[in-house]
Order: sequence, then C-alpha cells, then structure tokens
Amino acid sequence: MAVAQNEWSEPKVIAGLSLGVAASGIKYPNRNDTSVMVIAEGATVAGVFTKNAFAAAPITVCRQHLAPAQSGTQGIRALVINSGNANACTGESGVANALRSCQKVAEVLGVDASQVLPFSTGVIGEPLPIERLEQGIPKAIENVHEDNWSAFAVAIMTTDTRPKAASASFEYAGHTINVSGVAKGSGMINPNMATMLAYVATDAAVAPELLQALLLQATERSFNRITIDGDTSTNDACVLVATGKSTAPVIDTSDSELYAQFEKAVVYVHEALAKQVVQDGEGATKFVEVKIRGGRSSRECLNVAYAIAHSPLVKTAISASDPNWGRIVAAIGYADIEALDTHKVRVWLDDVLIVEHGGKASSYREQDGKAIFMQESFAIEVDLGRGDAEEKLWTTDLSHEYIRINAEYRS
Amino acid sequence: MAVAQNEWSEPKVIAGLSLGVAASGIKYPNRNDTSVMVIAEGATVAGVFTKNAFAAAPITVCRQHLAPAQSGTQGIRALVINSGNANACTGESGVANALRSCQKVAEVLGVDASQVLPFSTGVIGEPLPIERLEQGIPKAIENVHEDNWSAFAVAIMTTDTRPKAASASFEYAGHTINVSGVAKGSGMINPNMATMLAYVATDAAVAPELLQALLLQATERSFNRITIDGDTSTNDACVLVATGKSTAPVIDTSDSELYAQFEKAVVYVHEALAKQVVQDGEGATKFVEVKIRGGRSSRECLNVAYAIAHSPLVKTAISASDPNWGRIVAAIGYADIEALDTHKVRVWLDDVLIVEHGGKASSYREQDGKAIFMQESFAIEVDLGRGDAEEKLWTTDLSHEYIRINAEYRS
Repeated sequence: MAVAQNEWSEPKVIAGLSLGVAASGIKYPNRNDTSVMVIAEGATVAGVFTKNAFAAAPITVCRQHLAPAQSGTQGIRALVINSGNANACTGESGVANALRSCQKVAEVLGVDASQVLPFSTGVIGEPLPIERLEQGIPKAIENVHEDNWSAFAVAIMTTDTRPKAASASFEYAGHTINVSGVAKGSGMINPNMATMLAYVATDAAVAPELLQALLLQATERSFNRITIDGDTSTNDACVLVATGKSTAPVIDTSDSELYAQFEKAVVYVHEALAKQVVQDGEGATKFVEVKIRGGRSSRECLNVAYAIAHSPLVKTAISASDPNWGRIVAAIGYADIEALDTHKVRVWLDDVLIVEHGGKASSYREQDGKAIFMQESFAIEVDLGRGDAEEKLWTTDLSHEYIRINAEYRS
Repeated sequence: MAVAQNEWSEPKVIAGLSLGVAASGIKYPNRNDTSVMVIAEGATVAGVFTKNAFAAAPITVCRQHLAPAQSGTQGIRALVINSGNANACTGESGVANALRSCQKVAEVLGVDASQVLPFSTGVIGEPLPIERLEQGIPKAIENVHEDNWSAFAVAIMTTDTRPKAASASFEYAGHTINVSGVAKGSGMINPNMATMLAYVATDAAVAPELLQALLLQATERSFNRITIDGDTSTNDACVLVATGKSTAPVIDTSDSELYAQFEKAVVYVHEALAKQVVQDGEGATKFVEVKIRGGRSSRECLNVAYAIAHSPLVKTAISASDPNWGRIVAAIGYADIEALDTHKVRVWLDDVLIVEHGGKASSYREQDGKAIFMQESFAIEVDLGRGDAEEKLWTTDLSHEYIRINAEYRS
C-alpha cells in the first residue's frame, strides 16, 4: 500500500549549513522570496537538472559552476534561490542576471561568484528584477542560522500549498549521520510548468564522484518517478550537499556497509519529498502508486507505468472512484510492449485481482474495486508475466479542480 | 488556418455497395445497433487495425480473414458491425462470438464466413449478446440499399453526438471516380477507450497491394494525426473498399496521374473524417491544428507536435483562452529533440509570432495572442529551424466538460 507523507516535521540540523531568507519583492511585497544556503568550506556538492531544451538561465550557470559535470564539486559555498520569477526564456540578459545574483552572494560572503549556485522559480518569460534581488540577498545572509529549514522551505514555494521536508539519520560504529531535505513543486497546478526544486543535505563526508552518482540514482527513484501531468519544467533542479562535519569515516566506496546505509537514508529522503510533491498537486484528491513487475526490462515496466499514469481516461476514473478496469487494460495495451502476451497479464487494485487470462478475473466483484477506488490512497499493480524487472511510480487523479486552477490562473 | 468540417452531407452512392441497419437490442432496445455493408463480387478490401496489445476479438478475426496482411484482399463480401458492446477482453468466447456473427451474415448472403469482417464497439469486458445479434443480422441485410450511408453512420455511433461522413469525386479521361466514407469516434469522452471506426469505399478498381499501401498512408495522415487524450482503443479499425464498378481504368501503379488524383481524393476523405472525430470530442470547445516544420525528420516533428497536443497544461490554457506561451515552449523543450538550438525555434499562433531567439518575440503583444486563443479554431505553428521535415496534427482543449463526462459516466 502506498502511503504518502504529508505531516510537517522540522528537518534535522545539518552541521556546516546555515539558511537565511528575506523578502525582495520579486513578485509580491513582503513575502519571503529570497533564500540563501551558506555552506561551510570543504563540502561536496552534486546537482541534477532539467532535461528541458529550454533550460532557464540559472540552470546554465549552475552547470558551469558545477563542472566537471560527471562528479560532485568541491568549493561551492552557497546556493541562492528566488521564487516569483523563473528567469526562463529571457534571452541573453537571463544569464547575466543569474550571474549578478551569484556575484552579490559572493561579495557578502567573501568568496568567488563561481562558488555560488543560482536557482529561480516562478513566471516564465519576464525579466528577473535583479536590483530587487540584489537588495534582498544581504538581508537573507544576515539572518542565516542552522535551525532554519522551515523558513527556507516556505520561501522557495510558488503555488505549493504547504512546505515539504524530510529527514533520516542512522548510526554507524558509534557515529551519527543525518540527511535532511526540502522541496517545492506541485505538478498538477503550477502555471509556470510545475518547477520542482529539491535541496538535500547531509553531514556525511562523501567522495565527489560517489555523491553525484548517488544523487542521480536517488532522483531517478524519486522525482523521476512522480508524474502528474507529464510536463517537465525549464527550471527543475535537485542538489545534494555533503558537509563532511559528521565524525563518521569518509564514504569513498559504494562497496561498504556504511555506503549501503547512507544510500538508504538518502533515497528515503528523496522519495518522501517526491511523494509530498505529488500529494500537493492542487486538484489532486487521490494518491496512487503504480507498480509494474514481470517485465523484461526496467524500460518496459516504466512504459506501462507511464501509460497508465498519464492516461486522462484512467485519471478521471480515479477521480470519480469508478474502477473502470477497461481503461487500465487499454493503457497497458498501447504501451507498445513488443509481443506482449495479454493472457499472462494480471492487474490488481491493492490486493484485489481484477484482470487475468485476457479479461475480467472471475473472482472480481465490482464493489470490491469500487471500495478501493474510494480510498484516498491505493495501488494499481500489474504483472506483465514475462520477466523479472519491476518499477513503480506515483501519480494522482485528474479532477475538476485541476482544470479550474490551470484554466483560470491568469483571470 | 485549420478549419474543421462539421456539417452533415450525405455521402455519394458507391456502385457495388449496399448498406443496411437493424436494432438487435445489444445495449439499448429499439436503437439501430447492427450494421451490414454488402459488397459486390470482385471488390478489393484493405484494413488497418489498432496496435493495442489487448486487441478485441473481432480485430483478431478481421486479421485472419484479411490475410495476407501486407496487401488488400479480394473475396470479402460483407462487413458486420455492432455498437453497444466491444467484445473486448472477453476471453476465448469472444473470438467464437465474432465468428458466429460472420457465419450468420454468410448464411443469409450465401457466401463463406471467411468472406465477412466483424467489428464491435461499446463497453469492454462484457460478453457479446450473440443470440440477439444473430437475430438482428438478417433484418439488417433485408433492408440493404445503396443510398443508406446516413443510417449506417448513425448505427455505428456510441457516445458520438453526431454522425460523420465525407465524400470526394473526380473525373479522369471522361470517367468519374467516387470516394465516400463514414466514421465514429469521439476521443474526449468514450468511456470504452474512444473506439474509432472508419469505413471508406470507392468505385475505383484498385490492385490489392496498392489499396493496402494507400490505406496505410491515408490513415497515417488522418486518424493517426488526431490526438485527443493519447489513448488508443482495443477496437480501432479502418477499412477501405474498392468495388471496381467505375468505368475508369484499373489503378495498378502508383506512378500515374490517375493514382495521384485518386490518392488525393482518398486522403481528403480520411482527413475530413478525422477532423470530424476531433470536433466531436464532448467537452471539446476548441479545434487546434498543431503544425511543426523545420525538423530534421518527420519523427522529431511528430514528437514536438504530440508533446504540445498532449500537454494538459497547454490544453487547459487553450480551454481558458489564455495564450500562456511558456507552456508551449516548455512542451517543445521536453519533447526530447537531440541538441535543439532553442534560439532558432520560432512559435506562432496563426500568423502572430510569439517566440523567437529563446524568448518572447519583441513584436508580440498579449492581446494579439488572446484574440487568437478566443477563436474556436486556430493553429499553433512551430519552426524548429534545423531541417526540412514537417508534420501536422489536430487536437482539442481540455475542459471541465471532459472531466465531468469521463468521471461521471457510470454514475
């Protein structure tokens, strides 16, 4: 059973990190829209970014400052994030403005601009009001402190209805390692393409290549597994910071018990954040885990999972609590799986078998499916019956509210 | 400018074809739900069918009766279509029932069951009430006549709100060739996966391989270019019948003026039917042509076109008459075009340039975009600026009505 987590709990402090926010008046007056994360010297930073060809200017700057791209980077000393404006599709001036925000942070902290990573989220196609941001940045830095995740999580929000955070920690040979993170994003509704930003930090000491590889793997299993409307943003970014302030040994190989525990904690935090993003889709009334197993490859499991999760007909049926299994079967059918033997395919709603032998399961009763579709959270599970691969992702329904929010945003 | 055709006009009679309908009580009493097309001896028949792995039983039987699959078939003498039940996901009995319907037609006409093609559309997963269909078939055959396209077009409907038909004809060296067709389908709403059926007929005499190749090409440029919700049905089928009753020469090569004219007429009828299907999406309030040019290949043009046409964010913006161009740009950006130079991409709404040089066109004014989005019908045009390929498809908006119809179907 898929259970989403939507209760706020304050993320644990990560030694070596401090967080500050300020109101720069980017879009609204008196709203904290400027966030800075100050990172102690010696940390390692990894990043993954949107694959959208229209990547926003700050993404371009992040990629430059994080080079070499295949491994984490040492030397990054701060992140600066503004909400209210995406600095996307703004032509040449966009990159110049993103660099100016780095320069301002660098000036106040006494570091180089190339040691700062910029992020923006908000409306596309409008020039970033850089002078206002430059005035806000020193104020954000002035009030940084370690125990400030909540304010940070709220200041990066746009159309989110609530802040998103998660933590995990574990003991290793008498040492504690903590992982904390926050995210913003609400894919159902964001009129500016549902930008997803996530900042996860740990006090572990981690080799740069290993940190980058782990971030790729964790985002693949979390943010790349939430699908709400299939659209991806010009500004999506996920950053993993390892301050190295824990007393635990340096993690420099994936072939160790310490790494295995660390990986588990990092993936847990990413998944928890991703589920909170799905749950915050305004208009979303249901949380659904789509699990596919028995595929020949991970790729074909994902094809089937996305076909189900993206089908407007399946999503409206979920919204209406109507267990219209024909729609699920047809979505599996058009997922383009080569030589699929439909007689081997089985489909469950939670633990209720609904489809087998190419048709409705003989044991299936409509009221059993209905009872599950009435739940706020349930799983659609498919066994393709042709291999050992499995994949899962999380999605929501498509409701009246989705249309209202997205259609009437600017009116 | 994209203009959809939604006025009913009676298709031209095709010599060698007669059409009959009857009420078998498949789903509702006293509703014509059974249609038969009787085809004169000597005709050639081509078919294309859904790629859905859960293809319905009648599709399986059609494929057997039309073999060899790579060319049109001579010897087919009738089509039988029932609405109200899709005979899909019905296990082994499904094929047996589809064959029984062929057998009944064959019995009445005095031909072999393998000379009959069966089609079904309606609810998935329920057994076909074959006895009732067997009683209706003789009545449908009893009342066949040449001038009966209207009744045929209505009897194949399910959730369609209006019948769909189109005709074309041309003169060649003093001979007339006619092409007529009808279709059913309304992708926005059909609770049984929006089954699309199309029956096009001509009095031309056409070599079997040529007819099959032309049908593939015509469906590719019509029904495979309408996208409403991305879902494809278990029952989709498109048939092209050439009776050969025209006095024009036999069309046995694609390298001729006669073929060129014939191709144009057949593609015209297919496109006209496809546009009518899009327009009949219940809940659809806008008709949009998405045209992509300047791509390196047809495939990449289609990827961009589908990304735009499938984006719920773009579709809700269209519904709200909100020219939110950032959503179009982001959809182009995630269409996964290798090494796309975003500075070369240009986007128009009809003839209004909205995006160039990686951002908003300097000449663009919000009210101009708004005026176009207010129209019932308009084009979104994209030049990728990297090649000579081009493609177009047709789609609709995503409205409150779509959710209502699809969510509340069974309540």
